[in-house]
Order: sequence, then C-alpha cells, then structure tokens
Amino acid sequence: MITSEFERVSLPLADAFTISRGSKETAENVVVRLTDEGGMTGHGAAAPSPHYGETADTVEAVLPDLLDVVESVGDPHALDRVERRTRDRVHDNPAAHAAVSVALHDLATKRLGVPLYRLWGLDPDECPPTSFTVGLDTVDRVREKTADAVDAGYPVLKLKLGTDRDAELLEAVRDAAPDVTLRVDANEAWSPREAVERSRLLAEHDVEFVEQPVPAENPEGMRFVYERSAVPVAVDEAVETLADVPRVADYCDVVNLKLMKCGGLREAHRMIHAARAHGLEVMLGCMIETNAAIAAACHLAPLLDYADLDGALLLADDGDPYDGLDLSDGVIRLPDDRSGTGAEPI
Amino acid sequence: MITSEFERVSLPLADAFTISRGSKETAENVVVRLTDEGGMTGHGAAAPSPHYGETADTVEAVLPDLLDVVESVGDPHALDRVERRTRDRVHDNPAAHAAVSVALHDLATKRLGVPLYRLWGLDPDECPPTSFTVGLDTVDRVREKTADAVDAGYPVLKLKLGTDRDAELLEAVRDAAPDVTLRVDANEAWSPREAVERSRLLAEHDVEFVEQPVPAENPEGMRFVYERSAVPVAVDEAVETLADVPRVADYCDVVNLKLMKCGGLREAHRMIHAARAHGLEVMLGCMIETNAAIAAACHLAPLLDYADLDGALLLADDGDPYDGLDLSDGVIRLPDDRSGTGAEPI
Repeated sequence: MITSEFERVSLPLADAFTISRGSKETAENVVVRLTDEGGMTGHGAAAPSPHYGETADTVEAVLPDLLDVVESVGDPHALDRVERRTRDRVHDNPAAHAAVSVALHDLATKRLGVPLYRLWGLDPDECPPTSFTVGLDTVDRVREKTADAVDAGYPVLKLKLGTDRDAELLEAVRDAAPDVTLRVDANEAWSPREAVERSRLLAEHDVEFVEQPVPAENPEGMRFVYERSAVPVAVDEAVETLADVPRVADYCDVVNLKLMKCGGLREAHRMIHAARAHGLEVMLGCMIETNAAIAAACHLAPLLDYADLDGALLLADDGDPYDGLDLSDGVIRLPDDRSGTGAEPI
Repeated sequence: MITSEFERVSLPLADAFTISRGSKETAENVVVRLTDEGGMTGHGAAAPSPHYGETADTVEAVLPDLLDVVESVGDPHALDRVERRTRDRVHDNPAAHAAVSVALHDLATKRLGVPLYRLWGLDPDECPPTSFTVGLDTVDRVREKTADAVDAGYPVLKLKLGTDRDAELLEAVRDAAPDVTLRVDANEAWSPREAVERSRLLAEHDVEFVEQPVPAENPEGMRFVYERSAVPVAVDEAVETLADVPRVADYCDVVNLKLMKCGGLREAHRMIHAARAHGLEVMLGCMIETNAAIAAACHLAPLLDYADLDGALLLADDGDPYDGLDLSDGVIRLPDDRSGTGAEPI
C-alpha cells in the first residue's frame, strides 16, 4: 500500500542565476512524498525546465495521474512496473516522472535499510567531485563569485558563457582561480564557426571541456565543432533520453545527463550504460533543485566521469526544505549511516 | 567478511547435445560458493565454453585470483568494486567472472531478504517463456525430441541447423509441432549466400528468427544476410561484451547475450540497455548450465524479448546438484517466497 502527496515549493537562490538563455531568482520545484503502510516515507522532487516543456504548473497537472499509477501498483519495489505504466499513462514530462522515480527509490531503499547506492552495488569511493557553477554576470561579480567558490574549496568550476564578454569572463575566472579545474557551458549560444574559434580561447585558459557550444537542433554544426575544437566537447541539450545516445555518439566526447531530462533513475542508468558502449564519457548534471532530488542523483556519482550536482548549493541559506548530503568542498559523500537517498525534510 | 570455495561438477545430459560445431554428453561446470560471517551462502557457477577460450581447467585456474579479490573486498554488496577489481586482476575468462557475479548477487539479495529481480525492481509478470532447444540429430530423433518437447508443453522451440539436412529437419519439426513458435540457430555454419537462400526456407516454415547464420568474424557477411534475409536475424557469437553492441547494431534485429560470454549480471544489464538505445530486441541465452547459474539469468527475464534459458532443462534427471526455478511448460516463474536467485543445493 502506498499513499502519495505533492507540494509546490519556491526555492530562493543565493544569487540571481543567469545563463545565455535567461535569468532567475527563485526555482519552482514540486516535492513528491510516498508513504507505505508502515508510515515510512520516500521523498523526491521535480525541478521542471521550460526548455524541456515543463513548468511547476505542468508538473502539478500530471502528477495526479502518475501518483494514481503508483498507488494502484502499491508496491514500492516494483520500480519497473511503475515506470512502464506511468510512461504509458503520461508521455514526456520528464521532471514529473523523475520526482516519482526518486521518491520510489528512496522509499524502496529505506524499506530495505540500505543507502540507494548499495541497491545498485556502487562504490562510494569512486565519486568524482561536483563542479560549482558560476553563472553569467558582470566581470567583477564573476571574479568575486569565483574567488568565493575557491575559498569554499570547490575544486571544479563550471563557467556559463555565451555573450560578447566571454574572453573577459574567462580571464577574470582564471585570474581569481588559476588552479581549479574549469569547464564552460555555452548553452547553445554560439554558431559552429564561433564555437571553433572560442575553443582556442578555452584551450588557452586550460578549460577541460565545453558544453553544448551550438544549438542542439544543429547536429551537423556539433559535428563541425567536434572535428575542429581545441577542447573536448560535451552535449547537454542534445541528449535527453536513451535513444539520443547513439545519435550523438559520433560528434561528442561527453554526454551530460540529467534526471529532469531523462525522467528518472532507471533511464539514467540505461543512458550511462549505452554511453559506455560507445566509449563516451559521462557527466550527470542537474537543474536548480531541492536536496530531495539532488541527493538521489548523487548516488549515481560512482558511475560518472564528471558530476555537476550543485543544484542545491546555489540555493539561499535556509532556502531548501530538505537537508541533503554533505557536498562541502565539492566532495560527494555518500552516507553509509542513512538508508534511501539521505535527503530528509527539515 | 566473505569466505569462498569452488568445486568442479560434471553434469550428465539427458541426451547427447549436438550443434554444427560438435557434440557432447556431459557439461563441465564449476560451482562457486561465497559465505558471509553469519553463515549465509551465495551460489553461482561457471559454464565454460571452449569457443570463448574457457574450459573447466581455465576456470579453476583463475578462480583463486578472483576469489582472493572477493575476500579482500569482504562486502557482498560492493558489486561494482568487486567487478572492477576482478576485471583488473584477470582479463577475459567471462564464465569464471560470471560465477563470481552470480554468487555475489545471490548472497547480497539473500542478505537483503529479497529475490534477485526485486533488487533490480523488475516485474515478474513480464517474463517471456524460455525456448527449449532441439539439438542436431537424425531426422527421426529430431522428430521424436520435438514431439516430446511439445508434450512437455514448451511453447517455443529452438532448432539447431547447419548441415545438409536442414530442409528435412525443418520439415520433421513442423510436422511434429505445427503450432509452436520456432527459432533456428545455425551457429555460424552457413556462407552469406547460403544463409539468404535458407532464410526463404525458414520463412516457409514460419521461423521467428535465425541466429548467427554466418561466422561472427564476417560482419560484412552478416550485413549481406541482414539486408536480404526473409526472416529476422539474431547475433550470438558476434556479440560478447558491451562494446560489441554498437558494432552489431546495424546488421541485426536481435542480440543474444549470455552471462558466460559477458562475464556477469552487471555487464548483462549494461548490454541490455545499450541494445535498447539502438532499438534492438534482446534475447538471453545460456550454455549447458547448472541451476546455480541459470536461476540468476532467469531473474533478468523481465527485461527480455526472448529467453533461451533451457541450460538446466537439458540435463539428465538428478544430473544437477542444484534445484532451480520452476520452468515447466517453459514459463519462467520468478519466486516471491525465496530470496536470492532461488537456486539451492540438493
């Protein structure tokens, strides 16, 4: 027996968060709670992105249908049956599906008394550190935010680019953080020729790789960049679900997966394995998310080359209704003393 | 804490088993037992195949190294760590690795008190039936064996072909079993042109698909057949591990995976997901195997389109030191009342 409820939460950010497509000061998430007959509760959350057709409103609109399936299946361990039936009932809407997936995995592993990563047999010592994202801002503010991130001990930064100030921003970041591992994300802002040109600038600033330099709708442009770029190329917007992996495999080095794009923890596993079959490196990213969602993503970290799971780190102090895993210094510490995802309501 | 032991077992077959490459009357398996500090034991087994470079002797030769890793890791739930370290220690030798993988999964899920399929969240109602294999023999014996299999209620038969009697054997089988679902396996016996020609005969006898019509070493030949065959084409010998999946994806309809080719349950999962990314259908096959190995493979059945898990059904009565799952009528019945794989020593 499972009962369910959901609740919209408005998460204030520590700083306005800006990428090449826009800016925001709060993130709207929708929390899902699933409770079994013994009163044990699994928590999950949707962090919808309009770029993938979802808002908090659409999530709230489809969750009753999804949760109806969960309740009618009634077995927290029947992860496959719930996934198959919820997908049959509601197409697309990946963040809403992800909320259900996370809550169900949290509940199932709490019932078994194991942390989520142990359900999957993963090795907690194999987690790469998470990057910390520095959004678009004035050059001075980017320098300041970078210095703060370095002070906080983050060993990997991800810089958002995609304006006519790219060169200045890179310079400011390298000035404030000469030694951090640096990745950049253009969020589709460049043309293929621009991307190749900028890649030389990125290489000069010792950038590890560049994410989604050109629009996802332009695979030939991605291939053009991939063949000429001075730094490795990751795709993000171009890879949403499993069938996308073979499609992008011959024009990128890294795939950036997200629970909120692919619809849940089972699909993320499938995508990671398909990417490995193609010899791709794997990164797991996130939206701006409550710990109720981020904590689950962290349990996948042992399977990753790169983690970008700072979604809850960008929230204002006391801005998250959930306590999560300890990610200080960017180190993903999977708990061995807490079952489930390790996220708990405050 | 884990202690380990292994033992070679000689399994007498009910009938001599013949394919296009050769014949045998017993199968040599090597059973692995892993026991935790509480005295709980997980069971697995290797069913080595010389075609993939293994014999019972090679399995016995490498198991001490593999089991040394298992004991030094000492945690039955650390499936990934054991897999990574055993692969680092001993390359190839997939059946030996599979024995360790199965025993460890059996032990881990016994400790959690759940059947193996529930660790993976799979739906026991989604298992396809297993096929029952009719090996090469005289036309009269093939007709008799087919009639026996029909009497036993097997709804799917797999006929071994690859001699100059293919047409007669097909006729005899369809004569004795006009209504069963029929698959055929040529085990690399045909040339590409022969395979295309035979495919018309297969279509006339309502064959569901043909497995490995031409040698695995001839991908262009496989492509030639795939583009011209009158029935769908499966690959078996051509797909061993994860990296093979994208390679074969554009010249087959079905991939036939086996624990004893890929090295274990985690790699099988990865391969299934990679195959799905390419829109391939998935079959799981086996060698001639004790229930200690077959039972674990059965727990993957909900992820399959086609199951060919009759390895223990081909053994003589009382020929298996392990009781397994109930596969009567070819129905794979995953137990909800037994934790682990469900195989138990007699």
